[in-house]
Amino acid sequence: MKTYGFAAIDAREPLVPFTFERRAPRANDVVMEILYSGVCHSDLHMARNDWHWTVYPLVPGHEIVGRVIEIGSEVTRYKVGDHVAVGCMVDSCLECDQCGRGEEQLCRKGNTGTYNAPDRITGDITRGGYSKHLVVREEFACRIPDGLDLSRAAPLLCAGITTYSPLRTWNVGPGSRVGVIGLGGLGHMAVKLAAAMGAEVTVLSRSSGKAEDALALGADKLLISTDAEAMEAAQSSFDLIVDTVPVKHDLDPYLPLLDVDGTLVIVGQVGPMSAFNSVPMLLGRRRVAGSPIGGIRQTQELLDFCARKNVLPDVEMIRMDQINQAFDRMERSDVRYRFVIDMASLQAA
Amino acid sequence: MKTYGFAAIDAREPLVPFTFERRAPRANDVVMEILYSGVCHSDLHMARNDWHWTVYPLVPGHEIVGRVIEIGSEVTRYKVGDHVAVGCMVDSCLECDQCGRGEEQLCRKGNTGTYNAPDRITGDITRGGYSKHLVVREEFACRIPDGLDLSRAAPLLCAGITTYSPLRTWNVGPGSRVGVIGLGGLGHMAVKLAAAMGAEVTVLSRSSGKAEDALALGADKLLISTDAEAMEAAQSSFDLIVDTVPVKHDLDPYLPLLDVDGTLVIVGQVGPMSAFNSVPMLLGRRRVAGSPIGGIRQTQELLDFCARKNVLPDVEMIRMDQINQAFDRMERSDVRYRFVIDMASLQAA
Repeated sequence: MKTYGFAAIDAREPLVPFTFERRAPRANDVVMEILYSGVCHSDLHMARNDWHWTVYPLVPGHEIVGRVIEIGSEVTRYKVGDHVAVGCMVDSCLECDQCGRGEEQLCRKGNTGTYNAPDRITGDITRGGYSKHLVVREEFACRIPDGLDLSRAAPLLCAGITTYSPLRTWNVGPGSRVGVIGLGGLGHMAVKLAAAMGAEVTVLSRSSGKAEDALALGADKLLISTDAEAMEAAQSSFDLIVDTVPVKHDLDPYLPLLDVDGTLVIVGQVGPMSAFNSVPMLLGRRRVAGSPIGGIRQTQELLDFCARKNVLPDVEMIRMDQINQAFDRMERSDVRYRFVIDMASLQAA
Repeated sequence: MKTYGFAAIDAREPLVPFTFERRAPRANDVVMEILYSGVCHSDLHMARNDWHWTVYPLVPGHEIVGRVIEIGSEVTRYKVGDHVAVGCMVDSCLECDQCGRGEEQLCRKGNTGTYNAPDRITGDITRGGYSKHLVVREEFACRIPDGLDLSRAAPLLCAGITTYSPLRTWNVGPGSRVGVIGLGGLGHMAVKLAAAMGAEVTVLSRSSGKAEDALALGADKLLISTDAEAMEAAQSSFDLIVDTVPVKHDLDPYLPLLDVDGTLVIVGQVGPMSAFNSVPMLLGRRRVAGSPIGGIRQTQELLDFCARKNVLPDVEMIRMDQINQAFDRMERSDVRYRFVIDMASLQAA
């Protein structure tokens, strides 16, 4: 089927309107009209080929909310008119041990990214949510629960699940002491979600400038990482630190903040990290981990949790043709806290 | 009480005979005649002030096996003639949550090292096992079970517990897939202990030269870390990797070897580690941790386990006056796998 969206044509040019073919729906596919598409920092990295694997033209977007407009003959989960959401992956083998336990993001054969990945059947490169329609296997769509604001739900599909998943892996709940480093798209979700789980949440920031924002998002306090005395006083006081900083950085200031057996989980930076000192790890049996998104079952759990607890990202709505300005602003961290594209603004080229 | 041993007088000179005072036994102390003393790489680091906190004269030694020759009036656990062992710590607060759960090594107020640490009561600097006698609070002595070879037991108190503790923390048992990096004092114990727990054990080495030794110690196989094809084939195949390398090194070759949620635990290097790449951590939710020794309860559990399973370190027995040659050989990794000083060789100066 023909559809249209915005694409990066090469690494240096702005995104431009782009018309392309989606696959004809298979028996187990749903066809969505996309209503809202979140703008993730990865979209920018991929558009600019920062990770050296971009295939052009690239249609980014993996925080997708829409409405089912057609279903394949074997689809059982959804019907036309349902509101559904798609995140960072659109397929996996569904046969391995990881898929079996609902962790398709860790599929032994690799999951299929929502954009810039070869389709498992045809090999065609997938295209993402900066477009009018999406065709997706029903197992990789989640249901938007009643009562969840459609216009703000999209960022839950990447920023949300990327922070929700480690909070669940490390059993955050009432009484947990959670630190959040970085207060961008991921960080602001980590604060809201951890607070909604009943944790005591501290935002770690280089300056006091974010104190008001942090408290407004639900944090209990701000810890200023350049305040040596405060950092010393905060030693061994966190069970989990969610590190959303998306660039290379130094873990040494943060590791002593973890309590015995505590974990700092990296969810932001995909690539090089600085050298570190093992002493705080050894002395407190402290841990550093990474965590990717989450599985489909957990993503559904997140959407249900957010509907129940009324947790939603803070978004700034833009038109599709504002995407290049949005990328520029995102590069300057000038967004609170996530851009969402209102896809009603996208007209056929 | 007066006793004698060998001490480092400064960072550059060999150890020399040294006569000194032990404290008069308190009501809850036992007095041990030391029979065997293991030689740990930390002893060498401390003698040479590599960590910049050595107080001279330094009497090293924290792998100590002996016989009780006197007990304080309130001692209930031991009687004269019992064989006991002391490891890396001789005191802690015994009141905090960590002490309460038997993790005195993680005492909130800090444990008292067996040597080079201020006594909690007097502030005098503690002196270790390269000596004829030790006075120690009974709670910090473990019982040597019947049947455990006294002459080989000493290295269990540091090399043993340092590797046993993470195997227990990460629930190693039958079917666990354990890798061991480095085949020195700690590494050879990690292999023996993991094998005795029923794990499938792989030694990771830069060359095939250690294959015979690895198998003799109980490993199932050797993985050569410079063999790119073998390393690729071994991706995602370990639940736990025990990293005993005692110098700064690079974790990037090893992280992809961990299965989903697998952990690489650092027990060797105390200090700087190389920069690393977060991608394998993120993609497999892999973890890096540190682990110190273990608590007293777990150290006793280890001794009992080793007696039951007949697990003992491979040791080379030396005389006290051979300690300086032993240090030199240890620096060249010329020891299989631990020196133990037969303290019967130590005569009053």
